[in-house]
Amino acid sequence: MNEVLKKMKTRRSCRDFKPDMLPDDILDQITEAGTFAATGRGRQSPIIIQVKDKTLRDELSLMNRKIMGADFDPFYGAPVVLIVLADKEIPTAVYDGSLVMGNLMLAAHSLGVGSCWIHRAREEFESEEGKALLKKLGIEGDYIGIGHCVLGYENSVREAAPRKENYVYKV
Amino acid sequence: MNEVLKKMKTRRSCRDFKPDMLPDDILDQITEAGTFAATGRGRQSPIIIQVKDKTLRDELSLMNRKIMGADFDPFYGAPVVLIVLADKEIPTAVYDGSLVMGNLMLAAHSLGVGSCWIHRAREEFESEEGKALLKKLGIEGDYIGIGHCVLGYENSVREAAPRKENYVYKV
Repeated sequence: MNEVLKKMKTRRSCRDFKPDMLPDDILDQITEAGTFAATGRGRQSPIIIQVKDKTLRDELSLMNRKIMGADFDPFYGAPVVLIVLADKEIPTAVYDGSLVMGNLMLAAHSLGVGSCWIHRAREEFESEEGKALLKKLGIEGDYIGIGHCVLGYENSVREAAPRKENYVYKV
Repeated sequence: MNEVLKKMKTRRSCRDFKPDMLPDDILDQITEAGTFAATGRGRQSPIIIQVKDKTLRDELSLMNRKIMGADFDPFYGAPVVLIVLADKEIPTAVYDGSLVMGNLMLAAHSLGVGSCWIHRAREEFESEEGKALLKKLGIEGDYIGIGHCVLGYENSVREAAPRKENYVYKV
């Protein structure tokens, strides 16, 4: 089995992170990998916001928690959040953004970094608070929130669940 | 740069395939990689239909062509089609299925096989013809078509486009 397939099979979502910050060069390699995801007609509809700033990270966590109605950190203590959004005008936006998320999670794992897709980005960036945040960051245009790829070193990892029966049909 | 990152950066959508069939073991490695994509709450909402059968492959091509309103093979001559669908009942269906597509395309590239995401799977499996096809294959349940990952050996490959400016923001 080659290295790519091995990493695909051993990647797991992490829900228990160490607070330690990731080095910039690791973070940049992960983020760059996201930009190389396939996109519909090669239009590169997504953008990635790399958040290391603790204040913004905690602000996002709070917004997310409110949408979920939960009372814990929905980012599971991860120090870094990569927010993926995609241009609403492009019909493949959700598919494109999802592929970026996939690259980010796998790239992280290949570099020894844990990750998890945290949802509710759509609701977050439909809200006035989310729109104001983009504006504050100088991001113009109309974007759909796709997901948050939270990143950090893994504190504990769960066993992989077996694949379901009938995942694959052959003709 | 590690092998995973290298493969991500060199993967390209292929739109010009050789007609040669792929060996089963290569095809199965690609398909299996798809089943290891992350899914919302680990619910594994997608399914993959691996199509080698020429009659069905051509039938799908025709359905797809009609939806597009084009007069060429929308699968660009690829001998294999992996159809990805996902359980409509699960809210993360489209995201889950997209991650499966991403694994399939990257796994293919890691094994020297060309691939391309061909859209209009949603329209295909919303149609009576598409629903009848699933029934004929013994697939029960209500599925959204996510995409077709067409596969084959590359006849020609285009250069990668440069990444857009402002893909990444840092905070």
